[in-house]
This record gives sequence, structure tokens and C-alpha cells, in this order.
Amino acid sequence: MSDWLKVFAPATVANVGPGYDVLGLALDSPGDWVEAMRTEQRGVQIVEITGDDGRLPRVAALNCAGVSARLVQEKIDPAAGVALKVHKGMPIGSGLGSSSASSVAAAWATNLALGGALSKVDVLDACRAGEKLATGAPHADNVLPSLIGGITLIRSYEPFDYLELPTPLELRFAIVSPELEIKTADARKILPERVPMEDVVRNLGNVAALVAALYEGRLDLFGRALDDFVVVPYRSRLIQRYDDVHAAAMDAGALGCSISGSGPAMFAACTEETAEVVAAALVDGFQRSGIGAKSFIAGINTRGVRLVDEVE
Amino acid sequence: MSDWLKVFAPATVANVGPGYDVLGLALDSPGDWVEAMRTEQRGVQIVEITGDDGRLPRVAALNCAGVSARLVQEKIDPAAGVALKVHKGMPIGSGLGSSSASSVAAAWATNLALGGALSKVDVLDACRAGEKLATGAPHADNVLPSLIGGITLIRSYEPFDYLELPTPLELRFAIVSPELEIKTADARKILPERVPMEDVVRNLGNVAALVAALYEGRLDLFGRALDDFVVVPYRSRLIQRYDDVHAAAMDAGALGCSISGSGPAMFAACTEETAEVVAAALVDGFQRSGIGAKSFIAGINTRGVRLVDEVE
Repeated sequence: MSDWLKVFAPATVANVGPGYDVLGLALDSPGDWVEAMRTEQRGVQIVEITGDDGRLPRVAALNCAGVSARLVQEKIDPAAGVALKVHKGMPIGSGLGSSSASSVAAAWATNLALGGALSKVDVLDACRAGEKLATGAPHADNVLPSLIGGITLIRSYEPFDYLELPTPLELRFAIVSPELEIKTADARKILPERVPMEDVVRNLGNVAALVAALYEGRLDLFGRALDDFVVVPYRSRLIQRYDDVHAAAMDAGALGCSISGSGPAMFAACTEETAEVVAAALVDGFQRSGIGAKSFIAGINTRGVRLVDEVE
Repeated sequence: MSDWLKVFAPATVANVGPGYDVLGLALDSPGDWVEAMRTEQRGVQIVEITGDDGRLPRVAALNCAGVSARLVQEKIDPAAGVALKVHKGMPIGSGLGSSSASSVAAAWATNLALGGALSKVDVLDACRAGEKLATGAPHADNVLPSLIGGITLIRSYEPFDYLELPTPLELRFAIVSPELEIKTADARKILPERVPMEDVVRNLGNVAALVAALYEGRLDLFGRALDDFVVVPYRSRLIQRYDDVHAAAMDAGALGCSISGSGPAMFAACTEETAEVVAAALVDGFQRSGIGAKSFIAGINTRGVRLVDEVE
């Protein structure tokens, strides 16, 4: 009989500031855990899901973790069988890459349970298929940083071409997850099909400066360059109190503040000194209008998905 | 009696690849020269212009060099007088920052002739006023690199915020200036007011990657990231044979190829090894259709405007 392998995949912030669909980063916490074990039953079975309040489908073919795991299993050995236990460690549908973390953890756990023949890059497409099931599009801007860690730039989808950007280790993120629900599909629908040229130019300036700030380790510039003009002005309408919460974070000393993924979570870039105060300001900003909210503080996860444990 | 001071300001490539209105770079040649001398006659007089085939206005208030010089003179000493000789060293209206080079050289020569109290940043606004006279907009993406050299990023106009990016010294540019005329105003008119979101995303990915390529010294990535999707597809229609010339440059080994400024000049990023062949391919691409064209090869000017000489 085989042992269960346990894998952790981190939460992620996609659409980082002006980097809509191209910039993502991995947080050192929270994240999802997936346990995997080789079995005699061909294909992938999800035998347990915890931490989801019963919201996620148990049938593997309908679950993003099941889909990505199945593609990895097919790639390694079409005759093999894998059982999975999925442990959600973060809110679902909050804009923190929940489906990506599950897809990535499941894919990597399956790979390790079946001998570990594949590299992280080898399982990327399987993870994107899981992401597509959950969100409708095979975007990689959450999946990629959850898989490899750090701050990632997707230069191009066709051909797929990405870079790992430098990670200023002193950067902290204060994240707030308000009790609002935004569906990724709605968050896409609210975006304009065409963007005014002057806003395009402002985003080009900021995304270029953001990358320069990472290479130079200039946190002040990183914060200034976080402003987005092509997506946030529209999506922020789906987040009640967005402007007030943003202002509260900046007043509390944040370097910059924006929407995480397609929201409703928001992130503020901070230093270690200001992170606690900014996190409190983010929560307070929502609670003043009677909207419940939780915050946490995270650094950047530079390792990506990893084996954390082996259990009997 | 005072001496004439002589100043050189380099030609520039603006709208570098995906960096419309934000990225510019200075070429080590060609450029414009301006001589300046303090006089007793209050204000600025242009006493000579050479190299313009008689195309530029001699009246200082109607000439970009005169306008920028006048603002510098007013700033230093409203009662002072300066005489200028302008020597054009590059084609006018070709997309190589001709008006910027004259504005910058005149501003800097005037500053030096009146004692040199101002820094390069201090004269930026004067240079932008010259640019506005010539092109209708006080853009800084040619003026800034001509002034300070290197590869510059304008993150934001309000407030004005710019960065100097790293300069890979092995990078060469093969530039072709075809015998076509494009007015900057027409080049702006042909642009759409709104850009499809998917093209915005592709440009964000490329401009971010272009900056990363400069920091990493990765010329291959710099070349791949030069493709633009928000401006070049439209402006290239004003340049007959653009697609064929572009293909010829790439076939000859260029890293990447795009429009310089608002055209009609085109530039191809190269290494020293490929620059000659690429330059020949660029010229040949136009000449096959009977369009005359001249090429040259330049590295990046890292000094910007400079005093070259003092003459009696």
C-alpha cells in the first residue's frame, strides 16, 4: 500500500496593479493542501474535501483539482489511479486564486504520487485546464505564480512566454477579503471591450515602471506604479466602498493598493513596519459600512507549490 | 566679446516598440548642433540655420529651437540676449526626433552661454515647449532621452515622473529613413481613440518584458518584446511596404523591428554582427518598390546633450 503525499500550493494575486492578465504573484500564506495516493482504481477520485463548506463538487470531472490531476495522471500513465484529499485553506471566489491553488496542488501531488516524472512547467497546461473549468478561461496569471512562486510576468500566450521577476523580500502585502461575492464572469463582463488610448498609455507607463521598481528594489516606485487605468476603474464599481477603503489604506501608509484578481479581495503593498496598521485600515474601511471583512498579512512565496509532508 | 559655444543633441527613437508615448532612447548619431553666444540684444535671435534646405522658420518665436532657447533665457535672466546658429544633422519630419534635438541643443547651448546655472532637468519644460510648437503636443518621449541620454521611461505626465533604464551596450540600431513624408498630426489622427482590450493586454506583456530584458541584458527577449499592438498596426498603413520591410529586417537577423517615433523611419534592434546586413535589408525593402531610402547604424547615446566645442 502506498502512502499519502501532501502538497501545498499558495494563494496568488493576479492582475497586479497595471498588469492586467500579465502580472501575478504568490503569497506565502494562505494556500490549499492536496494529499494524493496511488491506487489500483484507474483515473482520479476525490475522496475528501475539507474547508469548502460543502460548496465544491466532489465528482473529479467537475472539480478543478480533479481535472488538473486527471490530465497529469493521463500524461504520466493512462492506466494509473490516484486518490485525492483536498483541503481548502482560503476563501473561495474571493480573488486570491483559490481555484488555481487547488488545481496546482492537485496536479503536483498527482505527479509526485505517480513517481514525479514531470517538472512544474510540464504540469502547467493541466493546471490551466483546471482553471478553465473553474473560471471559464485558461488564464495562467494565478496558476503560474502558484506553481513556481515569486512574481511572474506572462509576456505572451501565443506562443506562451513568461518571465520570473525579482522579488523584493521586504515587501509585504496587507490583504482584505470582504464579505462580498463577485463572479469572475461578472468581473469580466463589466470591462469595456475597448480602452481609451490615454488610459492605455498610463498603464504602459505604470507597468513598465513596476517592473523597473522590482529590479531596483524601489518600494516607493512599486507603490506609485500600482495604479491601474484599464480595469480597476470598472471593477471597483463591483466592490462597495472601494474608493474609501483604498483611501484608508493609503492614509495608513500603504505604498499602493489595488484589487486582487477580479476581486472582491483588495491588496495593499506595504513594508513590514506599516503592514499591521494598513491591514486594520482595510478592514475598518469595509466595516464602517457594515460589510464584514477579514485581513491578513503575507510576504511573497518564492518557492511555489511544494511537498510539505508524507503521512501514513 | 563672448565666444560661441557649440552643443550637440542626439537623434532619438520614441514610441520604442510597445512603449507608445512612454519609452524613448537616444542614438549616438545623428544629431543637431546649436552654437550660442551671449549678446547685448535682449531675447533670442537665430542668426543662421544650416542643413534644413531652407525649410525651417528663421524667426525665433516660430522655430522650436528659438522657443526653447527663449524660455531658458527668460528663466536665467530676462534682460539677457543670446544669438543662435542651428545646424541640422538629421532629416526633418522623419520620426527621429528632429525638433526635439534642435529644442534640446538650443536650450542647453543657451543655458551654457548664460553661465550654465540650470541643470538638464531644469530645462526640460523649455524643451517640451519647443516640441509643442513643432508637433502640437508637449511630449517628452523624444526630448527627455535627447537631453539626458540612454533609454528613458516616462511613467507619468501628471505628476511628471520618469526613470532611466539600463542600456545594454552591445545593442545596435539599424535605422532606415525612407523618402516618405508623414506629419505627426496625421500619424496621431490615424490612431483609434479606443483600443481592443486584448491588444492592451498584449502590449502590457511586451512593455513589461522589454523593461525586464534591459535589466537582464537579454537581447533576444528585447527583440521579441518589441512588437506593438496598439499603434503600429495603424501607423504602419502610412508607411508603404512596411510589412515587407519588417520581414526583410527579421529575415536578415534583426532582433526586432518597429516604427521610430511616428515614422516614416523604422528601426531594427540588432547586434554589432548583424547590423550591417539588417541595414542593407531595410533599404532594399523600400527600394524594391522604387521608394528611396537611406540607412545608418547607431548605438545608444548614454550622455545626452553635451558641449562639444568652444569656437572663437
